[in-house]
Amino acid sequence: MDVGVLYSGGKDSTLAALLLDPFYDVTTLCCTFGITDEYRHATEAAARVGFPAQSIELDREIAETAANQIIADGFPRNGIQYIHEQALEAVAEQTSFDAIADGTRRDDRVPTVDRSLAQSLEDRFDVSYLSPLAGYGRQAIDALVEELLLVEAGPSAEIPKGDYEAEIRTFLSETHSDALVAEVFPEHTQSRVLQRK
Amino acid sequence: MDVGVLYSGGKDSTLAALLLDPFYDVTTLCCTFGITDEYRHATEAAARVGFPAQSIELDREIAETAANQIIADGFPRNGIQYIHEQALEAVAEQTSFDAIADGTRRDDRVPTVDRSLAQSLEDRFDVSYLSPLAGYGRQAIDALVEELLLVEAGPSAEIPKGDYEAEIRTFLSETHSDALVAEVFPEHTQSRVLQRK
Repeated sequence: MDVGVLYSGGKDSTLAALLLDPFYDVTTLCCTFGITDEYRHATEAAARVGFPAQSIELDREIAETAANQIIADGFPRNGIQYIHEQALEAVAEQTSFDAIADGTRRDDRVPTVDRSLAQSLEDRFDVSYLSPLAGYGRQAIDALVEELLLVEAGPSAEIPKGDYEAEIRTFLSETHSDALVAEVFPEHTQSRVLQRK
Repeated sequence: MDVGVLYSGGKDSTLAALLLDPFYDVTTLCCTFGITDEYRHATEAAARVGFPAQSIELDREIAETAANQIIADGFPRNGIQYIHEQALEAVAEQTSFDAIADGTRRDDRVPTVDRSLAQSLEDRFDVSYLSPLAGYGRQAIDALVEELLLVEAGPSAEIPKGDYEAEIRTFLSETHSDALVAEVFPEHTQSRVLQRK
């Protein structure tokens, strides 16, 4: 059986791929709106960890809708949730894996995929949706990452990542200002995976 | 890292143990109220699949409280949920694994362990709680079981299992009647694992 895992190069999506690896043929799926080529940070991380990578093109409109939502809210939560749901729809529609997966965790506030959304994806696209970290809390995930991966952590603006935030930051910077980016994306710690231990 | 997995010999708890196996030292935990020795069906299944097994003695009062709840309700759902929560408390308290786990699934109605119960166990007993199947739907679980395990399925009254239901059925039969058992435990399909494929 094969699975496509939505992949940013961060520790959560990498751990999700590792947990699936003994049981599925794993391909990492690295999303881009075509705004920048930062998704390559994700494909490079996948190569370092040893997974094949495939880029997924998402409509630029999704980024614009999310960016407008983020500006209106003053915080990224709803916009990121919107992008994640659209990304799941896109990979379910564009690919033919037996399963699609992501790195959402039990303790995540965003993005989340509740049971009804999972069931809806499965019913409409005849695919299984897997969230291998959904049954793991923060402490267990930290312990597994510590055991399995070498990770670089730092401020979100400085760690090269292939996640949704990267291109949205650039989009907002170009269409509005760096000051707005700093306002709506509070600095937080991000991680990127360097290699397997 | 080691993990103790609440284990009945059925396909769900066996699959949970298999998903954890590449990353943890797995011990299966087979619960008994001391009413019958049916927990041995679970320890035997663990041996066939290749996992060490440890028996866990639960207070007989837990069985009695659950049985009374089941009689009052006319269905087993709340009683089984109560037992599962008490079993998690017991293994968290009595054992010293880095993590405890069970075979609860995304689509299960009972037992369920929501995020607040998981967090409460983790905080009070300094242990991680893992539900490796929480991110998997029915279709994905069926496909993994088909690929990994040889399973025998049949009516719940006839499949030898080491789950909570087995001893509660006997308890109700002895203290009340077989007719009551048939009334409150509607016949459903159960599974037991014969071996790995």
